[in-house]
Amino acid sequence: MDARYQVVMSQLMLPHQANPAGNVHGGEIMKFMDNAAFACAMKYAHCNCVTARVDELVFHLPIFVGALVTCKATIAYVGTTSMDVYVEVFSEDMTSHNGPEKALCAHFTMVAMGRSGKAQKVPPYQPETEYEKQLYAEAEAKTIARKQKK
Amino acid sequence: MDARYQVVMSQLMLPHQANPAGNVHGGEIMKFMDNAAFACAMKYAHCNCVTARVDELVFHLPIFVGALVTCKATIAYVGTTSMDVYVEVFSEDMTSHNGPEKALCAHFTMVAMGRSGKAQKVPPYQPETEYEKQLYAEAEAKTIARKQKK
Amino acid sequence: MDARYQVVMSQLMLPHQANPAGNVHGGEIMKFMDNAAFACAMKYAHCNCVTARVDELVFHLPIFVGALVTCKATIAYVGTTSMDVYVEVFSEDMTSHNGPEKALCAHFTMVAMGRSGKAQKVPPYQPETEYEKQLYAEAEAKTIARKQKK
Amino acid sequence: MDARYQVVMSQLMLPHQANPAGNVHGGEIMKFMDNAAFACAMKYAHCNCVTARVDELVFHLPIFVGALVTCKATIAYVGTTSMDVYVEVFSEDMTSHNGPEKALCAHFTMVAMGRSGKAQKVPPYQPETEYEKQLYAEAEAKTIARKQKK
Amino acid sequence: MDARYQVVMSQLMLPHQANPAGNVHGGEIMKFMDNAAFACAMKYAHCNCVTARVDELVFHLPIFVGALVTCKATIAYVGTTSMDVYVEVFSEDMTSHNGPEKALCAHFTMVAMGRSGKAQKVPPYQPETEYEKQLYAEAEAKTIARKQKK
Amino acid sequence: MDARYQVVMSQLMLPHQANPAGNVHGGEIMKFMDNAAFACAMKYAHCNCVTARVDELVFHLPIFVGALVTCKATIAYVGTTSMDVYVEVFSEDMTSHNGPEKALCAHFTMVAMGRSGKAQKVPPYQPETEYEKQLYAEAEAKTIARKQKK
Repeated sequence: MDARYQVVMSQLMLPHQANPAGNVHGGEIMKFMDNAAFACAMKYAHCNCVTARVDELVFHLPIFVGALVTCKATIAYVGTTSMDVYVEVFSEDMTSHNGPEKALCAHFTMVAMGRSGKAQKVPPYQPETEYEKQLYAEAEAKTIARKQKK
Repeated sequence: MDARYQVVMSQLMLPHQANPAGNVHGGEIMKFMDNAAFACAMKYAHCNCVTARVDELVFHLPIFVGALVTCKATIAYVGTTSMDVYVEVFSEDMTSHNGPEKALCAHFTMVAMGRSGKAQKVPPYQPETEYEKQLYAEAEAKTIARKQKK
Repeated sequence: MDARYQVVMSQLMLPHQANPAGNVHGGEIMKFMDNAAFACAMKYAHCNCVTARVDELVFHLPIFVGALVTCKATIAYVGTTSMDVYVEVFSEDMTSHNGPEKALCAHFTMVAMGRSGKAQKVPPYQPETEYEKQLYAEAEAKTIARKQKK
Repeated sequence: MDARYQVVMSQLMLPHQANPAGNVHGGEIMKFMDNAAFACAMKYAHCNCVTARVDELVFHLPIFVGALVTCKATIAYVGTTSMDVYVEVFSEDMTSHNGPEKALCAHFTMVAMGRSGKAQKVPPYQPETEYEKQLYAEAEAKTIARKQKK
Repeated sequence: MDARYQVVMSQLMLPHQANPAGNVHGGEIMKFMDNAAFACAMKYAHCNCVTARVDELVFHLPIFVGALVTCKATIAYVGTTSMDVYVEVFSEDMTSHNGPEKALCAHFTMVAMGRSGKAQKVPPYQPETEYEKQLYAEAEAKTIARKQKK
Repeated sequence: MDARYQVVMSQLMLPHQANPAGNVHGGEIMKFMDNAAFACAMKYAHCNCVTARVDELVFHLPIFVGALVTCKATIAYVGTTSMDVYVEVFSEDMTSHNGPEKALCAHFTMVAMGRSGKAQKVPPYQPETEYEKQLYAEAEAKTIARKQKK
């Protein structure tokens, strides 16, 4: 799963991030994913970035208190001033012998911001590795579909 | 904008929720929206609920430190065990004389959970007011489109 | 309960805000009330404000983890540089079918601050609605009583 | 200033506890005072306690980010199930050569709670030291005045 | 740098974690390192663990707000009920083109805890890879030196 | 235990600072110790300070949720630009009749920072009281031993 612009972040889920049943609040996970998308966009654009939209954020598995949660954020597609960052979340129960399992994923659209508070251009992007090409094709198809819908 | 199952939450955006440019992190807003969707789903289902998916979360306006941010979460559509909650976010600069402006919105799909950790049935829902009927029609169309896509 | 200068804020009480018995710490509620009084004073004065005193903060009902807590802050009385903000707190158990109940209330005296760090004048205030007149009369009586005591 | 039932707590004021002008929010200080009152009441009653009311909370001096803030909470008066805790707050600028200055004070009424969630009796209290006797006389006078007002 | 029992965690340093000069507080980094050591010990012992001691925690480089900070925690040595976890911290400025730099490191001694609150045995450990053998030799030498000193 | 440069800080341990077994995370305590060392160094140097190293941080007793934890930070030794701060931590169960017990201690090396971000000189230090002389002798011996080891 080779990619040049990728940020991996992990954290332990603590009791104050969950509802009384022990399920970690979706909002805590979304905030974590946004942090990872933000760091990944900054790694690509080398400037401040803001979140413009989030699509198809789907929970496959619940996440519980005590789990080690890992966010993998990868540049999927790059426009003139925006970047499509694909974020996957894996959850691992450290007391069990199972490895991490994919819990959810989503696409984040991040926009590069100049000092004047306006969107600014980012360098052009050409996918190179197998994994980069696959992410690029998927994200490009979605971008085109969204524009046609409008 | 009359609706029977609605929760309105507000909070002041603080410095620790923003990047150095003063833009509140998208993740902070998403966490806040998830809290509002959670409270609205509980108000309808009277039991614990979890977030299953988030769609078309789109930022129209940036939100800055010091703004009073208000989340309005309304039941839009109800399935067997899940609820589609429409969440709108308004931002107001308290030092100016402008009123609140709509900053973003999204659809949250919340699932009712029984004590055994499994999805449980929620009461059937019939839209009554003008606003409820409008939200219902929109959410129903999206649900059908999503099922056809699969 | 009509009033022109009013701010309503809500939040869900989380486990980390309570003692082991599930009672939300009074300090958490006071911090929330202060936030609401701050936002309400800014809405009136359109400048930075600080808390000068708090009186008769009385808990009528305990507040528990999981409750949706709503603060309603309303301008009651306005002096040369200060505002008396009346703050009421309502608590609602979202899993029950009961509505919100009044849990506590207090008077906050907020002072408008100029950029130099000194108190600055605020616009004069004339109560208009029935509810505004009632709050004004009560707050005026208390202000006079406090001055006489000194 | 000798007293047998006293808790002293200190913390550094951090940027996220202040408004943009560097003034620490009143609510942060109140939460800290409530923590100190809570610890002091527990030290006396040896059981869980809740805040019942707060009176005459008056800010004498503003508190700024970076200050070392110290709360001194002392048992002033004891009723059947409740304790009047006098809380003083001192602020010290660690980069200056000035010592701590008294910034605000208030009276907190704390109620001892049994495991069933009902108020429970606390041991009777007799002031002994000079300072205890002074606090006791003041608090007793206020309690009587409050009862007469009702 | 191959090792079988290793946990890698990353997070963005936020403004509320720093002093006014922008240096992230050492305490924030230590808390993060402890989290990583905790997760790594749990990954090895598959039970709850507590921190028993920390040695030679040395800051080589300051860490600033906005940096992406990565903790790498690796099992170095294993006793009867305790594990020596070596924790390295790397800091990366996402707006620059430099990669991560090693900012600090330390040895954490973690003890496995049974349900009764007493230390419990952990599985025996045999270093296998080159990197594991190197860490093992260093940690063993320090453990022996510490015992002789007593 | 008289010393001229000493800071005492206390806080109540809350549920969100512990693992599920009720043990407060070592990292929370370390962060608290670092805060106390930071305040103590500032009290001596009257300028911003950063943590350079931590040695021999040893937990003698576990700390549980609900405990009142007190950090006592004292200047032990002073170099050209750095200060050795000795930090002791005491834990007290407020619901019991036992007093505070020493739970852990450590030596923190803090460096004084000028506005340019470089280390700056601090005033020379001469121990005066019995306790100051004892801390000084111990810290001086350790500093010499560490230099010889290099």
